[in-house]
Amino acid sequence: MDGIESRDDARTKSGDAGNVKTLSILGATGSIGTNTLDVVARHPGSFDVVALTAQSNVEKLAELAKLHQARLAVIGDEKRLEDLKHRLVGTGIEAAAGKQAIVTAASEPVDCVMASIVGAAGLAPTFAAGAHAKRVALANKECLVTAGDAFMAHIAQHSCELLPVDSEHSGVFQALAATNPECIEQITLTASGGPFRTWSRDEMAAATVDQALNHPNWSMGAKITIDSATMMNKGLELIEAYHLFPVEPDQLNCVIHPQSIVHCLVSFRDGSTLAQMACPDMRTPICYALGWPKRLEAPTQRLDVTALSSMTFESADEARFPALALARQALVAGGTAPAILNAANEIAVAAFLNSQIRFAEIADLVGWTLEQADTLGLITAASSLKDVLGVDREARMLSVSRLNRGT
Amino acid sequence: MDGIESRDDARTKSGDAGNVKTLSILGATGSIGTNTLDVVARHPGSFDVVALTAQSNVEKLAELAKLHQARLAVIGDEKRLEDLKHRLVGTGIEAAAGKQAIVTAASEPVDCVMASIVGAAGLAPTFAAGAHAKRVALANKECLVTAGDAFMAHIAQHSCELLPVDSEHSGVFQALAATNPECIEQITLTASGGPFRTWSRDEMAAATVDQALNHPNWSMGAKITIDSATMMNKGLELIEAYHLFPVEPDQLNCVIHPQSIVHCLVSFRDGSTLAQMACPDMRTPICYALGWPKRLEAPTQRLDVTALSSMTFESADEARFPALALARQALVAGGTAPAILNAANEIAVAAFLNSQIRFAEIADLVGWTLEQADTLGLITAASSLKDVLGVDREARMLSVSRLNRGT
Repeated sequence: MDGIESRDDARTKSGDAGNVKTLSILGATGSIGTNTLDVVARHPGSFDVVALTAQSNVEKLAELAKLHQARLAVIGDEKRLEDLKHRLVGTGIEAAAGKQAIVTAASEPVDCVMASIVGAAGLAPTFAAGAHAKRVALANKECLVTAGDAFMAHIAQHSCELLPVDSEHSGVFQALAATNPECIEQITLTASGGPFRTWSRDEMAAATVDQALNHPNWSMGAKITIDSATMMNKGLELIEAYHLFPVEPDQLNCVIHPQSIVHCLVSFRDGSTLAQMACPDMRTPICYALGWPKRLEAPTQRLDVTALSSMTFESADEARFPALALARQALVAGGTAPAILNAANEIAVAAFLNSQIRFAEIADLVGWTLEQADTLGLITAASSLKDVLGVDREARMLSVSRLNRGT
Repeated sequence: MDGIESRDDARTKSGDAGNVKTLSILGATGSIGTNTLDVVARHPGSFDVVALTAQSNVEKLAELAKLHQARLAVIGDEKRLEDLKHRLVGTGIEAAAGKQAIVTAASEPVDCVMASIVGAAGLAPTFAAGAHAKRVALANKECLVTAGDAFMAHIAQHSCELLPVDSEHSGVFQALAATNPECIEQITLTASGGPFRTWSRDEMAAATVDQALNHPNWSMGAKITIDSATMMNKGLELIEAYHLFPVEPDQLNCVIHPQSIVHCLVSFRDGSTLAQMACPDMRTPICYALGWPKRLEAPTQRLDVTALSSMTFESADEARFPALALARQALVAGGTAPAILNAANEIAVAAFLNSQIRFAEIADLVGWTLEQADTLGLITAASSLKDVLGVDREARMLSVSRLNRGT
């Protein structure tokens, strides 16, 4: 049958490789980075680690670089360069530090870059990877959220393969394989609903940082965990999906699915829907992004089909989760609006984590910033990385000014 | 991104065609046949109907041939040829009758043959289609169940595309697109459980024909509806799946899913599972089989994602549904065993529909025939169509002899 190789073509399950892939990881000490290195360790002989970067955790960076015999380790915080060098003495691993050194590391011409730096800080390194790597496995949301048009054009210009690592987008990518884009009717991303799924607006308004960080299903960094609590995370993912897949905003939905088993549902014009499922473990989408079009063996828990009976799906309540509505507004507005949304949200989440504002004020600050930016004419079609970085800066200043005035 | 066409490549949603496909339908008056012609009518200019065949419903055959401007109409029952000719007077549509005429019609060199003749009667015409059509959309189970090895070799020899129409296998085909076969861990087909899902063995033993024909989800022919009640249908589908997809018998499962929304789940070695879903309507897999790799617009009810909360999944109980265990035994035994299983089951279901035997005796007769065939040395590796037809005949004689002796 077309599209299905004969049994004789199948390789043995062990030793997926044959040829070794060179791999760099931007944000190696974070959740995605360490999961990626777990996958690498389980496929000996499949990957050759070139560069590992981290912002500040010099101890873990040095440990990982030694364990995986990286050629280069880069720490973002320049003050920690001497510490890094000291830890790498005698290993032959090159050490470097600073923002520009991370961009240089990202520019190594490798087979694959795992782009997992959190936040707008990931923009320049991920663009650099897109220009020099054969494949970017994308775990940084902000490239697509803030500079989606520019990033997609950049990737195309350099003939770089882009594989999403977000579990939802990985699922959509899998469901779309070999399907023509005009056949898509709807893409639905699922959301766990986070820790406040069943909370009232008033309860949420008084939520503490610890409560917001207590995600029911996923163990992730603080920023994304708060975004999950506000559901801004799902809003950002809708914006990402718009850039990754050939759909219009009104073809993108989200649905609350507290079990986080189904990650997406892609519906086609013949009435068929493909749903991608997996137990919540980032190593599954990481394996997919690293191995595509093959699938690497992952040491994850397998689905128990009879246990799927307990799955539930609810509409997302934008009244209780206004961040979702704000993200959708920014998606529809397009241009620089998502970058402004993202910048304001980063400021707001940091302020919440520092106990400067209450939980409900995160969305308030983002909404206020979008309004102000609109009034000031900052929402434009400009979409180069430089334009985006300029708007990002202005939006942050706006948000910070509001914070400093008190709420 | 690789595998995803740019937006500019997308065609408009209406007018899927561009080029007209020639299409013949074997079994045009049955459930699959009429659904196929419904799809054809909804895509004017996309299909040119060449031949339509039916076994005995001459009135409907003539009506459909005129409506769809077929070139040729063939009735299996030779006594009805004059009636057919009379009904087609002045239309220019050629009329023919008899088994050989159906094989001749199936041999027309068209773009696609919908092979939807029920039972072993579909073997010769479907093999003929496999030798002359560019694509066979396969809705006849018996080609794969009774002569799977020979049919797959035949299809490959003639470079014919084979697209499954069973909703479950269509789903697996969709989920496998662009995935290497060595990546598959498990294929799970869902079963509605039929009308007797919750009945005890004793209740089932006394079930009437009307009760067995009262399928909760699908409107299908009598034979397949009874097979659904015994769950032999799912057993036959596991045998089909073995031939269609590159898996071993122990990688094939079924699970009871009374809502018939999820049709299959395909699990890969990275922990990811793709599930194909659709409201129960055969026009969805028919559209897929006709349009692949494009997807034709189908006028089917769309899934309501929030309604998926009520989905349930249960293990299949082979003690209450012994036909399922018998089919699995035949699958593992291989060779002619599935052909014997199928022949005995056809005899048994016909006897049940004629009120000759009780519901529970369907599986008894199939099990008895398999045992006798084993004793007589009929279970062999022989797998040519000729061998299969010989074994099919002998198994039927065995079953009938048992019936005539009374049970």
